[in-house]
Amino acid sequence: MRAEKKLQTRQALLDAALMLMETGRGFSGLSLREVTREVGIVPTAFYRHFPDMESLGLALVEEVSSSFREAIRLVRSNQFEHLGAISASVQIFVDYVVAHRQLFLFLAREQYGGSTVIRQAIKEIQQRFIVDLIDDLKQMPKQRHLNVADLDILADLIVKTVFSTLPELINPADTEDNSQGIAQDRLESKLRFIFMGAKYWRGVLWEPDMDEDNPPSPSQV
Amino acid sequence: MRAEKKLQTRQALLDAALMLMETGRGFSGLSLREVTREVGIVPTAFYRHFPDMESLGLALVEEVSSSFREAIRLVRSNQFEHLGAISASVQIFVDYVVAHRQLFLFLAREQYGGSTVIRQAIKEIQQRFIVDLIDDLKQMPKQRHLNVADLDILADLIVKTVFSTLPELINPADTEDNSQGIAQDRLESKLRFIFMGAKYWRGVLWEPDMDEDNPPSPSQV
Repeated sequence: MRAEKKLQTRQALLDAALMLMETGRGFSGLSLREVTREVGIVPTAFYRHFPDMESLGLALVEEVSSSFREAIRLVRSNQFEHLGAISASVQIFVDYVVAHRQLFLFLAREQYGGSTVIRQAIKEIQQRFIVDLIDDLKQMPKQRHLNVADLDILADLIVKTVFSTLPELINPADTEDNSQGIAQDRLESKLRFIFMGAKYWRGVLWEPDMDEDNPPSPSQV
Repeated sequence: MRAEKKLQTRQALLDAALMLMETGRGFSGLSLREVTREVGIVPTAFYRHFPDMESLGLALVEEVSSSFREAIRLVRSNQFEHLGAISASVQIFVDYVVAHRQLFLFLAREQYGGSTVIRQAIKEIQQRFIVDLIDDLKQMPKQRHLNVADLDILADLIVKTVFSTLPELINPADTEDNSQGIAQDRLESKLRFIFMGAKYWRGVLWEPDMDEDNPPSPSQV
């Protein structure tokens, strides 16, 4: 019973930090004192849960990582069953992100935030997603013409495109009405552009805008 | 002479803020007091130059905006003269960004930073670049098959891809050796994927991974 209560307080500290960042403040702007005040415990009680604020930040990164992986698991379980894969994937992903708004807002911001340790942890998450996505892409018959280096770039481009869309998807307060729906449509179109590029990718140093009718022969590459 | 001295102090305040953020701190973590201390003026003298810290932040956004536009002007003046346009453009752009490291680091971070006003200003810059890029793309014979909506998505994808690469291009301290060279190569490959997608773009709701041998007839679209 005590262990359960302890876990509850730990979660309350994590939630309080997310809530305090809701107004647009960065994680490094939060103080231990205001987080504990928000939860209603004395500041020294903080140390029963985390050695310092940075550790709390890393726990948030862990939470968003599991959450992101859950979103991707949902997308993946859908992907091979339906037509219109891109559209369905984006819809599933966006629904999940919006339902876990505060957590993904934390992720979007702190990828460039003030703490090197947290930034590094987020980068590792991104990298793990890229590796997972490479595995997924390898399974797809339509991507068989891409080698490992191509798949790496493709997965990187997809993950970064999704990450760079997060703020628009999450924070429509910044912009006009229905901006989230617009952001979702745009993400979908961007992924279509990328997959169209992947389809016709030759993995050579030839540039599509160089000479469209005469791609170089292998000897020129 | 006094006006010149005043401009010098103003620039010194801007430079001091950039320098203080070098260690990875966000702009909203800076205090007026430490910026003036860095420059060697009393805190109240700050108000001769800016009404508040946020205005100083907006002046930095203006500075990075001119700087970015200068980088793009260099890229653009090159683009139509040489073959290997993507490679040359990336090289010119990266050289410029690295030479203006602190300023682009500010841009990369504060696009998700704590100040709504600064975030909004950076978003407007991004938007302006997208509009400029649409104009450029319209001039290119190879992109004539794309309509305005397609060009808008394409330009958005390119600008966001460049923005999302900024931290890797600027901040190799976060990662292993030669990470900047690797980041540059990866940016180049990503842009190739995107332009390859643009080349084969049909502007229809057909998905490249759906059925590659039988694209839908116009009636299905």
